[in-house]
Amino acid sequence: MSYPFLKGHGTENDFVLLPDHDGAIQDDLSSARVEALCDRRAGIGGDGVIRVIRSAAMGGPVGVEWFMDYRNADGSLSQMCGNGIRVLARHLVDEGLVTGPTFPIGTRDGVKTLTVDGPLITVDMGSPRELGETTVSVEGRAWPALHISMGNPHAVAFVDDLADAGRLLDSPAYDAEVYPDGVNVEFVVRRGKRHVAMRVHERGSGETRSCGTGACAVMVAAALADGAPLGERYRVDVPGGELAVTWTADDRVLLTGPAVIVARGTTDL
Amino acid sequence: MSYPFLKGHGTENDFVLLPDHDGAIQDDLSSARVEALCDRRAGIGGDGVIRVIRSAAMGGPVGVEWFMDYRNADGSLSQMCGNGIRVLARHLVDEGLVTGPTFPIGTRDGVKTLTVDGPLITVDMGSPRELGETTVSVEGRAWPALHISMGNPHAVAFVDDLADAGRLLDSPAYDAEVYPDGVNVEFVVRRGKRHVAMRVHERGSGETRSCGTGACAVMVAAALADGAPLGERYRVDVPGGELAVTWTADDRVLLTGPAVIVARGTTDL
Repeated sequence: MSYPFLKGHGTENDFVLLPDHDGAIQDDLSSARVEALCDRRAGIGGDGVIRVIRSAAMGGPVGVEWFMDYRNADGSLSQMCGNGIRVLARHLVDEGLVTGPTFPIGTRDGVKTLTVDGPLITVDMGSPRELGETTVSVEGRAWPALHISMGNPHAVAFVDDLADAGRLLDSPAYDAEVYPDGVNVEFVVRRGKRHVAMRVHERGSGETRSCGTGACAVMVAAALADGAPLGERYRVDVPGGELAVTWTADDRVLLTGPAVIVARGTTDL
Repeated sequence: MSYPFLKGHGTENDFVLLPDHDGAIQDDLSSARVEALCDRRAGIGGDGVIRVIRSAAMGGPVGVEWFMDYRNADGSLSQMCGNGIRVLARHLVDEGLVTGPTFPIGTRDGVKTLTVDGPLITVDMGSPRELGETTVSVEGRAWPALHISMGNPHAVAFVDDLADAGRLLDSPAYDAEVYPDGVNVEFVVRRGKRHVAMRVHERGSGETRSCGTGACAVMVAAALADGAPLGERYRVDVPGGELAVTWTADDRVLLTGPAVIVARGTTDL
């Protein structure tokens, strides 16, 4: 079976997109096939697979035309992916499948609002929750960290130098009572006013080039530490590029950054 | 500029193929473009780029229709790649660009003979040279090793357990007087009669899933250690799959294994 695909990325968080507007390949998208597609040597390579499908074909929200059916590289379902949905939005815009600069996309975590502004795409990531202080450690060094939820759990630790976090080959140690299902750990340095840089260790994936919810959690932690008023925009440098995050007056976190499609074709994986 | 590409691999040594039969894109294949294509997150991803071009358009050997213009992932030219040329052969067969099970392909290391047998493709890798004993070490542990040249330099060390070589994040230590330009280091265990398994650290690339010349060097070292007669076929397991190597009575090393194309399309990288 040969079928179409695209590959794209947002700040080097990369995805294989499978156009399947009417859900014809749904039954064939096994975990084994997702793993094969995401394999970086035997496959196309990606952090996840996004099936591009109409909400109606997913039993998704009425009045929302498109749905992001997201799978992690291991084939498991995921509710939401901040960089992935921006890449999906780029594809929908490229193909003329949406109109207007602002449009909704359905996800397993509810309907998200996307806004396109030239090379940049913004997604409304919802409201953060600050859940207190905790501790993370790497290779015997420990740092205080702030527990932030962006739907998924984060521990944000400010460090003097991003190299302090070492090679991040293994998961940082964390308080399993605070994070029974694991945690994404962000290490952050300040680069200037309203400007930070981060590295991230994602649970289940290891160190990655970018993490959308991680950038949001880092901005929230920085804004809290700075006593910044709501509405301020922060620049958040990640290893794979540059994101901007705004925590709005109505308590929404907006994630903005580039999103591109780099290849399109067919595969029989 | 949008142009066609394919992605394929041989035992998970993977390549981006650029069909350019008449050399039209030659001037545009900068190192920056090769790096962009091989980038595993922002690009398509591969260990190298193979431009598929007619020998005539390269000023290559007369009477040999096709030439492998190979670039490493960093954009540098490379003379030859044992897995890459097998993937190129698969593409030529798939597209009906060659006839017969046996055909030549030109390379910067001379004309190579390819033979197709169903899913397996064999390349004649030429004659090995055994150049004496040396020593390699990883994380403070040292092993005796055999210096084998397959055109490029190898140090083959037999170990009790492939895990002994550790994470192989850094280059193994070696004798710089023996290998002034660096060396590919293979660690080998015996799995049975005429059957070995290996890991490889390639100079400039780190640990890889497979290395064609490395598998050949390993077979030669094993055959010498076994006192095996010429003509014996060895199975060589690599992390990315299974290869077979035969050292023929006329002192040629034949590398055999699978080679597949997994995706095809267009890119504007």
